[in-house]
Amino acid sequence: VRAVPIALDAFGGDHCPRAEVEGALIAAREGHAIVLVGDRAPLEGILGQLGASPELPLRVHHAADAITMEDSPAKAVRQKPDASMPVCFDLVKRGEATAVVSAGNSGAMLACGLFKFGRIKGVERPAICTRLPNENGYFQLLDAGANIECRPVHLGQFAVMGAVYHAIVSGIARPRVGVLSNGTEEGKGTDLTRAVDRVLRQTSDPSFQYVGYVEGSIFRGACDVAVADGFTGNIALKIAEAAGALLVTILRQEVGKSLRVKLGGALMKPAFARARRESHPDHYGGAPLLGVKELAIICHGSSSPRTIATAIGQAAHLVQKSLGPALAAAVAAAEPLFEAARAVEAQEPANP
Amino acid sequence: VRAVPIALDAFGGDHCPRAEVEGALIAAREGHAIVLVGDRAPLEGILGQLGASPELPLRVHHAADAITMEDSPAKAVRQKPDASMPVCFDLVKRGEATAVVSAGNSGAMLACGLFKFGRIKGVERPAICTRLPNENGYFQLLDAGANIECRPVHLGQFAVMGAVYHAIVSGIARPRVGVLSNGTEEGKGTDLTRAVDRVLRQTSDPSFQYVGYVEGSIFRGACDVAVADGFTGNIALKIAEAAGALLVTILRQEVGKSLRVKLGGALMKPAFARARRESHPDHYGGAPLLGVKELAIICHGSSSPRTIATAIGQAAHLVQKSLGPALAAAVAAAEPLFEAARAVEAQEPANP
Repeated sequence: VRAVPIALDAFGGDHCPRAEVEGALIAAREGHAIVLVGDRAPLEGILGQLGASPELPLRVHHAADAITMEDSPAKAVRQKPDASMPVCFDLVKRGEATAVVSAGNSGAMLACGLFKFGRIKGVERPAICTRLPNENGYFQLLDAGANIECRPVHLGQFAVMGAVYHAIVSGIARPRVGVLSNGTEEGKGTDLTRAVDRVLRQTSDPSFQYVGYVEGSIFRGACDVAVADGFTGNIALKIAEAAGALLVTILRQEVGKSLRVKLGGALMKPAFARARRESHPDHYGGAPLLGVKELAIICHGSSSPRTIATAIGQAAHLVQKSLGPALAAAVAAAEPLFEAARAVEAQEPANP
Repeated sequence: VRAVPIALDAFGGDHCPRAEVEGALIAAREGHAIVLVGDRAPLEGILGQLGASPELPLRVHHAADAITMEDSPAKAVRQKPDASMPVCFDLVKRGEATAVVSAGNSGAMLACGLFKFGRIKGVERPAICTRLPNENGYFQLLDAGANIECRPVHLGQFAVMGAVYHAIVSGIARPRVGVLSNGTEEGKGTDLTRAVDRVLRQTSDPSFQYVGYVEGSIFRGACDVAVADGFTGNIALKIAEAAGALLVTILRQEVGKSLRVKLGGALMKPAFARARRESHPDHYGGAPLLGVKELAIICHGSSSPRTIATAIGQAAHLVQKSLGPALAAAVAAAEPLFEAARAVEAQEPANP
């Protein structure tokens, strides 16, 4: 008996479908079962070119249409039902696949997750959970952009879900959660962060330990999970990526300026590669959408074949570790925390 | 005739008063007139130890008290009128100094600016303007933390003031302004950023060119001035600093691991130093508080003597270039823009 496969959206990323087909082949050779979803003719053409063996646990499922980065997220579900992305979600719903992996439109992934999978009981807002490096390894940042305006209960749910996810991937039993803010002193933050901080201080939860406000300290290991509304979280994520990239660009410019530095750069190359490794999606895969009933993993649009293959392995691992049931159980157990958050909201009419 | 001096708060930073006295001496030897404000006995003691010549354009003005990083900002003005920081502002008000430089409590600097100097006519909220590096040089980010909750008119005023400041320091005539957001596509952003974006698109201003939403692209030179509310701006600033520092830390850890990489690191050292230069306050000084009637410059708490000296030179340069009058003129000329922003606010009751 073959394993139930991971559904890979072959028409998602910037380099689709080539990067997706190559990634699927790598993952299939690593033993993962995959259903490659998209327009059959070009997919079979590329598989033929690449000499894919029919023995591999890889098959094509035809989907005539594709969602582009320019499409509005709602279109994903309503106007393009036969696009490769929603068809992946349909396969999981019918039990023909266990999870979705896509490097496509992340807003459309959220819409498909909400409308096709539905939310886990008790979850008000699913969140995109991204991984960032710190001095000791890595931490999770959520929400990375699914929910622009949030209420305190949403951040409380991000804390629980991020902690469950981090526990599974890192093995840490009760991860440390912080609230991203503009300083750690009392009185800092917005109405939202102050309300969340008060609730997390007063109501403990079995899934995580609360460590208070965090800021730049997240990169020095201040917490395992940093929670924020999706606007703040998305900006933090993009600023972190771009600031790191700038430093590498400036060093590269310097390397071009003298033979001495060029030699130093050549000698340091393996160090740069290792420094990059922990923060590179080739190494860890994609960002799960946490809070929907089945697993969906969102990869960078620019994903390489190796990133796609890693994300397929990541999806298979999370399914095997029962991420979905673990999230549902933790959310159910955290009802006292969410009730406390809703009570604080009721006192503060200023919240959206 | 001696020039009117810059007032330096000698009891501000983490290494005060030693770093401040050393910084003042460097600046005085570079020809800047300085009044060093704080407890006279220790200041004169350090000046004596350092062999300060009485010929230097440097004098001590006694202030018995000091504001600490733990003091609440309002205390700065109300409960500690004889502290070195508010006394600096008093000296400027009386015409005995031209600007204030301090590495102290930035909330207290804001409070002193508001209560001692007062706002420039037409400015609703002064902002802290910080400089960050990009691929071509640097850009300004404001507000970096003075105003946590903002309305559209505030971001419009940050755009005008940041552009005037950038024009003076960079020589660029009509700097490019962007609004920091979670993506550049239409429909991205919060109620606040969407309202600001609409107003800046529709109403042009002589001080700047509007380039739309910006995100990680700010580090690739997308704009000269990025505006944001003080919560978002402060988080962006701290994340950028910490992400850059993390990369350096990880590379340093790698350098310890092999002789080859250690040699490469040694050869690359001057490149690291140059890469760091543009983003280091030793090179550019501090962050001006824009929107108050006189000049106040806020330095990092951890400022080195060289940073203090550079900030004194920066203050003298900005006074000489008439930053204050330039801001007042640009704000007066931008009234149509601010009116448009207020009109948008009136339509959107959701704004704070």
